[in-house]
Amino acid sequence: MNLDSFENLFVQKLRKLYDAETQFAQDQPGLAEVAGDEQLRAALEAHVEVTKGQVERLVQIGNMLGVTLEGETCEAAKALIKEGQEIAKEGGDPFVKDAALLAAAQGVEHYEIAGYGTASAYARRLGHKDIDKLLQQTLAEERGADTLLTEIAETSVNEQAAS
Amino acid sequence: MNLDSFENLFVQKLRKLYDAETQFAQDQPGLAEVAGDEQLRAALEAHVEVTKGQVERLVQIGNMLGVTLEGETCEAAKALIKEGQEIAKEGGDPFVKDAALLAAAQGVEHYEIAGYGTASAYARRLGHKDIDKLLQQTLAEERGADTLLTEIAETSVNEQAAS
Repeated sequence: MNLDSFENLFVQKLRKLYDAETQFAQDQPGLAEVAGDEQLRAALEAHVEVTKGQVERLVQIGNMLGVTLEGETCEAAKALIKEGQEIAKEGGDPFVKDAALLAAAQGVEHYEIAGYGTASAYARRLGHKDIDKLLQQTLAEERGADTLLTEIAETSVNEQAAS
Repeated sequence: MNLDSFENLFVQKLRKLYDAETQFAQDQPGLAEVAGDEQLRAALEAHVEVTKGQVERLVQIGNMLGVTLEGETCEAAKALIKEGQEIAKEGGDPFVKDAALLAAAQGVEHYEIAGYGTASAYARRLGHKDIDKLLQQTLAEERGADTLLTEIAETSVNEQAAS
């Protein structure tokens, strides 16, 4: 970790996000596959494509800054993914499993909301307006995904799990 | 992991939160100590006491449900704590270090916001109104802590780090 300058800290944050998103993009299809509730499965499937676009956006940001974003490992993303994978391979009540999967997906969304919120604040402070616009697009997508998951939890998945 | 019933899933979520909060309560004093910015240090110090209260609230919820919340390990909390500890032991520009510490603290807050949001939704669905009130108190505290950290980032820490 290099804490010598704010610009370095910004690049490091982007690298962590790049590794996290790359991990999530690889993991998400497997989670979508085991979801039983149709709305939940559709939301998780749709988010796979969104995540791939977010990885591309980060690559674009790296190019704008003239840096590579590869080579960092995000341990928090690993731990969040492991939570979801443990649920995916469990038996039990399929509705309860859906509720647990949905909660794990929201844990991932919130990790990203915090990360992109920070990266966006750094970009603004450093005067990288065009980069901030890209980060804000991803932030809006993550917030939207979180809101959609809450709706699915409230209107479908948790109700089925509790009945 | 037991996905046989929604009530079991709820208890498991509470156990994860209990382990996470216990880990955070032990870790936070060390992070507060290395913060250079006065507002940041004060916010982190104040949150140590808030976190202890949140642990107590979870113990109370366990008693209301007649279950113990001990024995679970929250790997995501471990990873989030490790991020903060790595920053704490780094050298570099003290203002940049503050910005990194603040971002790590916000990562923790968002993990808790997601976790308590889920636990509160489960409590409502299961008809545990009194427990939901307690969870909502903690959720409000976490959201307040996140908002305060954003203010400190915008008005003080990030500005100093970038200058």
